[in-house]
Amino acid sequence: MDMAETNRGFFIHLQDKKAVVTEQEIPMPVVGPDDVLVAVSGASVNPVDLKRAASGDQQVMGFDTVGRVVRTGANVSGFSAGQKVFFAGEGQRQGSFARYQSVTSKLVVATPRGFESTFLASLPLTGITAWELLFEKMGYTASAGANHGQVLLVINGAGGVGSILTQLAKWSGLTVVATASPKNFDWLTANGVDHALDYHQDLTTAYQALNLAAPTGVAILYQPVPYAQVAADLVAYFGHVGSIVEPSGPLALAPLKNKSASFDFEYMSAKTDAGVNVASQGAILQQLADLLQSGAIRPTATRTFPVLTTETLTEGLHTLQAGHAVGKLTFHVGNLQ
Amino acid sequence: MDMAETNRGFFIHLQDKKAVVTEQEIPMPVVGPDDVLVAVSGASVNPVDLKRAASGDQQVMGFDTVGRVVRTGANVSGFSAGQKVFFAGEGQRQGSFARYQSVTSKLVVATPRGFESTFLASLPLTGITAWELLFEKMGYTASAGANHGQVLLVINGAGGVGSILTQLAKWSGLTVVATASPKNFDWLTANGVDHALDYHQDLTTAYQALNLAAPTGVAILYQPVPYAQVAADLVAYFGHVGSIVEPSGPLALAPLKNKSASFDFEYMSAKTDAGVNVASQGAILQQLADLLQSGAIRPTATRTFPVLTTETLTEGLHTLQAGHAVGKLTFHVGNLQ
Repeated sequence: MDMAETNRGFFIHLQDKKAVVTEQEIPMPVVGPDDVLVAVSGASVNPVDLKRAASGDQQVMGFDTVGRVVRTGANVSGFSAGQKVFFAGEGQRQGSFARYQSVTSKLVVATPRGFESTFLASLPLTGITAWELLFEKMGYTASAGANHGQVLLVINGAGGVGSILTQLAKWSGLTVVATASPKNFDWLTANGVDHALDYHQDLTTAYQALNLAAPTGVAILYQPVPYAQVAADLVAYFGHVGSIVEPSGPLALAPLKNKSASFDFEYMSAKTDAGVNVASQGAILQQLADLLQSGAIRPTATRTFPVLTTETLTEGLHTLQAGHAVGKLTFHVGNLQ
Repeated sequence: MDMAETNRGFFIHLQDKKAVVTEQEIPMPVVGPDDVLVAVSGASVNPVDLKRAASGDQQVMGFDTVGRVVRTGANVSGFSAGQKVFFAGEGQRQGSFARYQSVTSKLVVATPRGFESTFLASLPLTGITAWELLFEKMGYTASAGANHGQVLLVINGAGGVGSILTQLAKWSGLTVVATASPKNFDWLTANGVDHALDYHQDLTTAYQALNLAAPTGVAILYQPVPYAQVAADLVAYFGHVGSIVEPSGPLALAPLKNKSASFDFEYMSAKTDAGVNVASQGAILQQLADLLQSGAIRPTATRTFPVLTTETLTEGLHTLQAGHAVGKLTFHVGNLQ
């Protein structure tokens, strides 16, 4: 770039438990030898942004990035200036609520053709989380139709992770049962859910009324404490109950013992936090990009804000905080103001 | 056999929470087309015998059998009358505290040469349980030296499962840390434990004083409720906390979430209860037999009763009930009276 680069970023803190957003000038990111510097064009909000703000984290937030490569570090090959890319970022570094972001190239993937930045921004964090939960933690096989004959039960199928996890589960051959509010049943169906259950109902009764085999997996995409016992009761022998949310208290898992079953936690940032298998997240995103390109899965954005400002980011975060978010809320960042 | 066969078996019930044993004549077992009928020569007591008695189970108990083949069902090949065999039995059928027992041939393995029945009776249930926990549930690789560089922490390393699990862990290359009472530290060392910890100490402090990497697995071979939090605190990123005991209440597992880690239950009888992968238990026992024969592992019997009577079985069960059992208590059943 010829002109002097200036950078601006958004910060989140909580005041009386409500998200407050501020914007300010920030330094241009350091571009290390293994990094790619990206001009951000699409971003999204995730519950982890709020969780980190609640913990007092002062970093620029934002875990999903779509953008164009500005320049690359000395060790980086395979990317060139102007190329459109996307990725889920690292918790230890500045995020995507900014004009410019740098990130290790291991995480970066060329975008599939024909998708807007705002739609692609729905995919990285939730898609990688769903993939890791299903295929690295809960033991399902990651290929088309591979898990045919098995049932997956998803608690909160309409949320950010649920909306892509149900698609990946269906692609991999699972029969998918998911809970949601009845007003979101059409959204579940569009995402591959075979049987939608009203989450207000007693889950054991509602599941048994379907006359399906016991689920080999139960994915709890919500606070797991109130669902642990019913998930442990329902899951099949040798099954897996999985969760992406830190439990607020102890978990009632006794029924898992005589079934020789497991409870698995999935946290996307664990790989970058631990510096372990980081490149696997780029590889997963590449597979997700291929599935998008082939039409096997689709973006999950339900609302796209045409511009990222303190006002729109605040509105997006407050929508998450109110609960009951459906799909993903994404932002076009090209018009950053 | 030419003479008329008569069978006798031992029954356990609890009276004021103490095991009471009775002996009576019982029918000869039905020998189905896939079964092997065995004249029992060695048996052992396991905590599951007491657990089933507590639940009111009226079956003849006993999960470990060493014996000689008496006859085989129509579909069975590979076994012949007089052959010495051993196995861990099925929860749904009469057990080994009897003169004769029949069992599906899938579970039955020829004994390695040169071991007394009373010593071999220490192996099947605990060996299969330990193998499944380490290599099927907690993700370690089941071959010599394969897990070099990783640390396993074992809570209660001196008990029945612990005494063989530590040997298998060591064989597979793990650095093994185990808790016990100091009077049993020599027993731990003999079973391959690298670092013995006094279980009276604070476990976090004691582990940290070893200056080892975080354990990739924590095997809780005891009631897991009081150990869940400390295990979750200590275990490495992507690690596994495993347990073979049904929790008496909810488990504090929150620290596992940001590590993307798992909690796994192992229950040996789940395969026969569910009718799933039953033959795998014969295959595991065959590998254990090969390891015994090669000297890579050794039997874990610490006390062998020379005869199975109501008195000796009662004494064995009361020893288990008192807690702090070391290794395995086994019985010679050839002199059944």
